[in-house]
Amino acid sequence: MAVGQKALPVLHPVAGIRLGATAAGIRKKDRRDLVIIECAPGTLAAATFTKNRFCAAPVTVARQHLAKLTPRALLVNTGFANAGTGTPGLEDALASCEALAKHLHCNSEEILPFSTGVIGERLPLERLLAGLPACVANLSENGWGEAAHGIMTTDTLPKGCSRKIKIGSHAVTITGIAKGAGMIRPDMATMLAFVATDAVVSATALQDCVYLAVNQSFNRITVDGDTSTNDACVLLATGAAGNPVIDRTVGEAYTKFRDGLTEVFTELSQAIVRDAEGATKFITIEVMGGRSESDCLVVAYTIAHSPLVKTAFFASDPNWGRILAAIGRAPIEHLEVDKVAIYLNDLCVVRHGAPDNGYNEAKGLAEMRLAEIRIGVELGVGGCSAQIWTSDLSHDYVRINAEYRT
Amino acid sequence: MAVGQKALPVLHPVAGIRLGATAAGIRKKDRRDLVIIECAPGTLAAATFTKNRFCAAPVTVARQHLAKLTPRALLVNTGFANAGTGTPGLEDALASCEALAKHLHCNSEEILPFSTGVIGERLPLERLLAGLPACVANLSENGWGEAAHGIMTTDTLPKGCSRKIKIGSHAVTITGIAKGAGMIRPDMATMLAFVATDAVVSATALQDCVYLAVNQSFNRITVDGDTSTNDACVLLATGAAGNPVIDRTVGEAYTKFRDGLTEVFTELSQAIVRDAEGATKFITIEVMGGRSESDCLVVAYTIAHSPLVKTAFFASDPNWGRILAAIGRAPIEHLEVDKVAIYLNDLCVVRHGAPDNGYNEAKGLAEMRLAEIRIGVELGVGGCSAQIWTSDLSHDYVRINAEYRT
Repeated sequence: MAVGQKALPVLHPVAGIRLGATAAGIRKKDRRDLVIIECAPGTLAAATFTKNRFCAAPVTVARQHLAKLTPRALLVNTGFANAGTGTPGLEDALASCEALAKHLHCNSEEILPFSTGVIGERLPLERLLAGLPACVANLSENGWGEAAHGIMTTDTLPKGCSRKIKIGSHAVTITGIAKGAGMIRPDMATMLAFVATDAVVSATALQDCVYLAVNQSFNRITVDGDTSTNDACVLLATGAAGNPVIDRTVGEAYTKFRDGLTEVFTELSQAIVRDAEGATKFITIEVMGGRSESDCLVVAYTIAHSPLVKTAFFASDPNWGRILAAIGRAPIEHLEVDKVAIYLNDLCVVRHGAPDNGYNEAKGLAEMRLAEIRIGVELGVGGCSAQIWTSDLSHDYVRINAEYRT
Repeated sequence: MAVGQKALPVLHPVAGIRLGATAAGIRKKDRRDLVIIECAPGTLAAATFTKNRFCAAPVTVARQHLAKLTPRALLVNTGFANAGTGTPGLEDALASCEALAKHLHCNSEEILPFSTGVIGERLPLERLLAGLPACVANLSENGWGEAAHGIMTTDTLPKGCSRKIKIGSHAVTITGIAKGAGMIRPDMATMLAFVATDAVVSATALQDCVYLAVNQSFNRITVDGDTSTNDACVLLATGAAGNPVIDRTVGEAYTKFRDGLTEVFTELSQAIVRDAEGATKFITIEVMGGRSESDCLVVAYTIAHSPLVKTAFFASDPNWGRILAAIGRAPIEHLEVDKVAIYLNDLCVVRHGAPDNGYNEAKGLAEMRLAEIRIGVELGVGGCSAQIWTSDLSHDYVRINAEYRT
């Protein structure tokens, strides 16, 4: 069940980008599991990758290829993550790039590979390669929806977001897709997310925008605290919109583009949390009044990762003592317990470190029964704040992850 | 279900210690929920308490009382933790001490209060006070078993351990009880554990021994990573055994006593993990070859707190990729992925950062099906090691914690 997530919205085509998807039978039959995102010559790319030191073979290869050439295509498979596979895994990733390069008549270093799925098992390379011709044949500017389906794993719904903004007199499109739904706690990186724009943007401005937008979106979500070996977020800019180049020196255009991008990233990252494994609640945690943004984030993540807080939300139980206990064990220096306040949506539960006089169980229950809940924490020791999004811990989370490989 | 936990063993009386338990109806009816541990005049006490900054009112009071006088009695209630209760909570804790002091004809600062249960709700002080006479009337040197039952909350079995050791020609007894079973990640402190000995030990040696033993036992377990607001471990030494005083300068006797104590603490702390909420597996995580003990502990706890690792163990699924991913995201500096090895019991799963040639799924499954499993991790970058104990994440964990207050 995806909390408050709508059906896939209209995903506007981005001039210069074609997408194809096919069911190659990589791990399961009759399920789209292979996606190609092709981009026109001259497309710029900016990306962030997982900081997990056991990063997957495709992450290593994509990073290397990106450093050498601008990409002509992204190749994505689900089913197997090609992580923890050693040298053979690297060879598999390289071989898949070479095969697609032949189909597209380009250099294999112009292909960026991405994988997601089971860690520690080899890619079934033959099945992947056999699926390429059909996938190439499907390439279409209108392929965003198919591709959004094609990158799903335990996701229950495809995730996409699209915006049209004006840069001067030019209409610019930003369209992206993403997948979840477990092993989610992007660490200065993201889950698999592919976003494209036809805006003309300088390479440095593009990378800047990705970092800034990722930091406010994909780096602000957690499902289970488990940073994946395969996280990647790629932004492609085809330049087909013909607007004057957006650079960091061009104030208004840069801000407008960055804000539009952040909006798309945020909606995609929230979609991942809404459709988190077993999620029945979409929880926003906002920590205010901290001595630093970092302190606020530490408190927010300590709450978000507490299995006791997460099960209480699953049960719609206003057991705020668990939130208080999580704050109390958060490893930050500047915490004064008698200044702490806790809110459920707009309801004050704790003030000055003790139950608020106006609070009662019935009021707490009314807030906890909602599907979307904001936990507000006021630390009262500074002027910084931070906000993250997370989900609850349900029976289905355990079931999905206990049965994951069966 | 408690993994590999036997029925309560024989708990030898400790001369100078009497225990009483009663059902005072504090939160549920017909359930022992009030315990007194009385000690003879002159008994020394050493203790460690939670580092959660929202520490409970009884923790604050016990700490203050302990700093002033040696205790005459410990007063323990379950049902309500008296944490997050502000000034009224402190008053309740003090009032309970005063009431018991009247019954025992001692100073109220000679009483140490302890509470465990729901956070954020007031103690039903009247019911607690009404239960005191029956509890005092029950006081007996043979009351250890009753007391072990009396401090249980979500525990399915009472937890106790007892050892007799020889200090020179003197027989010395060490007996203790503990409770779990959730919100368990003691942080330089412990869950509720009460241990007594009749050994003659100097005050400094006693405190030393508690720190050393706690550090190898209660501080090496985690169920859910949630450090409680009420953790406390108290060691009482009545001195009734009449042995020559054990001090840090008396080498052999000190070592023998410390080792005996560590054994009792370790068995109690493991009992907490064996009976962790919903546990079906008892997991030992041993990390070796680290640059520091602290690095090894960080890696061990990152694995132990991963919901994905925990659900894989619940499913008996040898999905070692999740262990590898947890190691890869552990926040330590000295990690070289191509030196990492992973073992399930004696089975090598990963060597040099990639699947071991001798490994296959059937072998992995055979190890994962056992109820007691050791995860061995070799980092290969140093000579330090550390070991912790944890449990799996099951449907019952979610059920127990979703229904906790109902």
